[in-house]
Amino acid sequence: MDPLTTFIDENRARFVDELSAWVRIPSISSDSRRAADVRASAEHLADHLRSFEPSRVEIWPTAGHPAVFAEWSEAPEGAPTLLVYGHHDVQPVDPLGAWTSPPFEPQVRDNRLWGRGVVDDKGQVYIHAKAIESYRRTGTPLPIRLKMIVEGEEEVGSPNLDALMQDHADALSTDFVCVSDTAMFGRGLPSLCVGLRGLAYLEAFVEGPALDLHSGSFGGGVLNPVLELARMLAALHDSQGRVAVPGFYDDVVALTPGERRALQELPFDEAEWLKSTGAPRTWGEAGYSTLERIWARPTLDCCGMAGGFQGEGAKTIIPARASAKIACRLVPNQEPDDIVRKVTEHLTRIARPGVRLRVKSHSGGRPYLSPTDHPIYEVAKRAFSRAFGKPTIFIREGGSIPFVRTIADATGKPCLLMGFGQPDENSHAPNEWLDLDNYHLGIKSAAYLYDEIGRMTSGSEGESG
Amino acid sequence: MDPLTTFIDENRARFVDELSAWVRIPSISSDSRRAADVRASAEHLADHLRSFEPSRVEIWPTAGHPAVFAEWSEAPEGAPTLLVYGHHDVQPVDPLGAWTSPPFEPQVRDNRLWGRGVVDDKGQVYIHAKAIESYRRTGTPLPIRLKMIVEGEEEVGSPNLDALMQDHADALSTDFVCVSDTAMFGRGLPSLCVGLRGLAYLEAFVEGPALDLHSGSFGGGVLNPVLELARMLAALHDSQGRVAVPGFYDDVVALTPGERRALQELPFDEAEWLKSTGAPRTWGEAGYSTLERIWARPTLDCCGMAGGFQGEGAKTIIPARASAKIACRLVPNQEPDDIVRKVTEHLTRIARPGVRLRVKSHSGGRPYLSPTDHPIYEVAKRAFSRAFGKPTIFIREGGSIPFVRTIADATGKPCLLMGFGQPDENSHAPNEWLDLDNYHLGIKSAAYLYDEIGRMTSGSEGESG
Repeated sequence: MDPLTTFIDENRARFVDELSAWVRIPSISSDSRRAADVRASAEHLADHLRSFEPSRVEIWPTAGHPAVFAEWSEAPEGAPTLLVYGHHDVQPVDPLGAWTSPPFEPQVRDNRLWGRGVVDDKGQVYIHAKAIESYRRTGTPLPIRLKMIVEGEEEVGSPNLDALMQDHADALSTDFVCVSDTAMFGRGLPSLCVGLRGLAYLEAFVEGPALDLHSGSFGGGVLNPVLELARMLAALHDSQGRVAVPGFYDDVVALTPGERRALQELPFDEAEWLKSTGAPRTWGEAGYSTLERIWARPTLDCCGMAGGFQGEGAKTIIPARASAKIACRLVPNQEPDDIVRKVTEHLTRIARPGVRLRVKSHSGGRPYLSPTDHPIYEVAKRAFSRAFGKPTIFIREGGSIPFVRTIADATGKPCLLMGFGQPDENSHAPNEWLDLDNYHLGIKSAAYLYDEIGRMTSGSEGESG
Repeated sequence: MDPLTTFIDENRARFVDELSAWVRIPSISSDSRRAADVRASAEHLADHLRSFEPSRVEIWPTAGHPAVFAEWSEAPEGAPTLLVYGHHDVQPVDPLGAWTSPPFEPQVRDNRLWGRGVVDDKGQVYIHAKAIESYRRTGTPLPIRLKMIVEGEEEVGSPNLDALMQDHADALSTDFVCVSDTAMFGRGLPSLCVGLRGLAYLEAFVEGPALDLHSGSFGGGVLNPVLELARMLAALHDSQGRVAVPGFYDDVVALTPGERRALQELPFDEAEWLKSTGAPRTWGEAGYSTLERIWARPTLDCCGMAGGFQGEGAKTIIPARASAKIACRLVPNQEPDDIVRKVTEHLTRIARPGVRLRVKSHSGGRPYLSPTDHPIYEVAKRAFSRAFGKPTIFIREGGSIPFVRTIADATGKPCLLMGFGQPDENSHAPNEWLDLDNYHLGIKSAAYLYDEIGRMTSGSEGESG
């Protein structure tokens, strides 16, 4: 047993206690009354990292909540640099009554740590912190240069991350990026996420009469905005579940036969997945499997629609207006602006002159696909499997993580999405939990990752960015 | 000048004052905290009618709010009976801040009386009360037997009117019915409403996932309930604006060429009508004029639709459910139950198995068409024109007045819809008003109507029901 592994095993309980101490700070970034707590959370982390003798640790202010930066730079000349990204802010906790134990009083039950932020993302930040600690306390030289950027605004869309990356481009220069903020495909199944979908989001407003009209006195005289919007929404898909917006698929990079085979080989239990949704059956674009559709094909969904009377019982009106929120999930090489434009043009084309259409675009994000032919992915697989004792699989995520694209674009370097959560960990819901085996093996995975990257010998892989 | 006319002219101001006194009682039937006020309103009316020496005046309790019944029966043997229907309950007043003067502190401004219930329907009930008073105070013998039923639950759908009509079938027996609770076609334009549309109302609930799903992680995997409901709503009309529900038009009695010509000859200003709606243009079933569509053709409207996120900004979910309220306006001989069944069957047929559909039926009402070939309509035209000095026109109303059908069915007798409101009188909105010329000429119209009915000579018209 190497000293690193032994240290991590021997300190398993303490590592949980120390994470719990951090989780007690309610760093809810979306709640302006919690600004002092988010700052306290940054300071708590900086203090903690400081005890592992970094070359540099700083709190970086932003226009919003502060980020923490730390660096360990005594690796031998020519050693590669790894930038670890995480965030120290957390989701809101409503509805509070649904929590079994209070969100900011972390508890261990059933080999899980329960509390807000335990897995998203404080636990995953501490996985790296504890891996670094293990190197320091055992006197093991860090084989690579390590940098950590832990922002405080991920849960509100990272509005200042772009500026941070630009303002601190030198400090953040790296060879590789590791983001630990995602979930594994299944229990104890080491998984590297190699693809994220992007997002284009828009809202359509359809207006007819100036005010709600009596549906008796006026019914049959004017176009009903709710029915017209319904007709327009219905015209966004064809009968095969394909998006019917002209040009929608123009820039989609098709799945290769190899990628389709790899997806097919994953241990995906469709019946179990369907059960988790509660829907009567799966549904989607003809010609693709469920995993292909949710990970690697673009979609168009309506996230909300409203118009007219929504109370109890019967009110007889022709509503003055109706609106719908439309979210498209994008895959490479679709661009959010282009998709918003195409959907808007389509809606404009099909709206009839009995109503007025207005479209508002919300912020979106570009899709991300890892350059999996780069050797870093094999290196990461090796480290992950060494800790978990199982082969590491490539997965994708249907959701969007806009900051991944921000970081990947800003650094221009391969990005590892090496997450230690579980799909059912309630990361944005009440009763968030962290599997303590994942936490423990995650710390080992991180330690082994630094080790394996240090062993990379080829010059092209190791040159400093 | 006959004594009746003179008396009505001389008491014009007092008649307004006395109406104002009644309007002060806030008889809002939908507000359970106003139950005592609705009762006080009934008592106020009964007391007032009592001063005109009826043969009988009674407050009839119901399972809800009480009705007032009065009768003047000293007409000569064989004289026809007229039953006048009205209601003494009023609409709610929200939003209170939108009223220029308080709803229950009636004010005269611009030759209008402003206040809740001034036209709907207290003013129209007093039109008959004051016509009767004029006969009594001038010593003019009432040429017909007169009955009044003034219910207290019209604004909540007349839930106990059926039972009242059955329990008091003898008291309410009549030859003709006069309902004064509608509006005239235009300012000072005497109008008899000869057709009302019916109503079939249902609510469709479409359910998919058990809870809202993350549109990234799950998008493409399951059918979106909002989009599916939109698709189903879109399938309720064809491209020509016709209702696409199989069998929807089966029982529709087509307009005769004569009826179409009469509608065409009405002084209908379509541009003005459109302006009153605020909609960009008129729209509806191909092949029919706007007046035909809103009065004499059946329609299907969506009165409200809701599903998913409706707040500010972007939330990325696949909603668990969506619902829509659907109102069909019916014309003879469509039946509400039959139409609810047909729409339900159509929705059931087109809903895809990725969602679960549930349909709830709300209470509706049957359409009504007056037997305008009956001589009572010529009699009423004559009386109305005598008061207003203009030819009386036949109009229809696109809305539904379920109690008209209840009364028409219960009595089996022709029903006159002789209303004295104006189309823009805000009867269900803030700032309800009554045109004081209409009130004054309305009292004359009612007095002349009793007179003209008394002159009807044919036995078939005069036999007691």
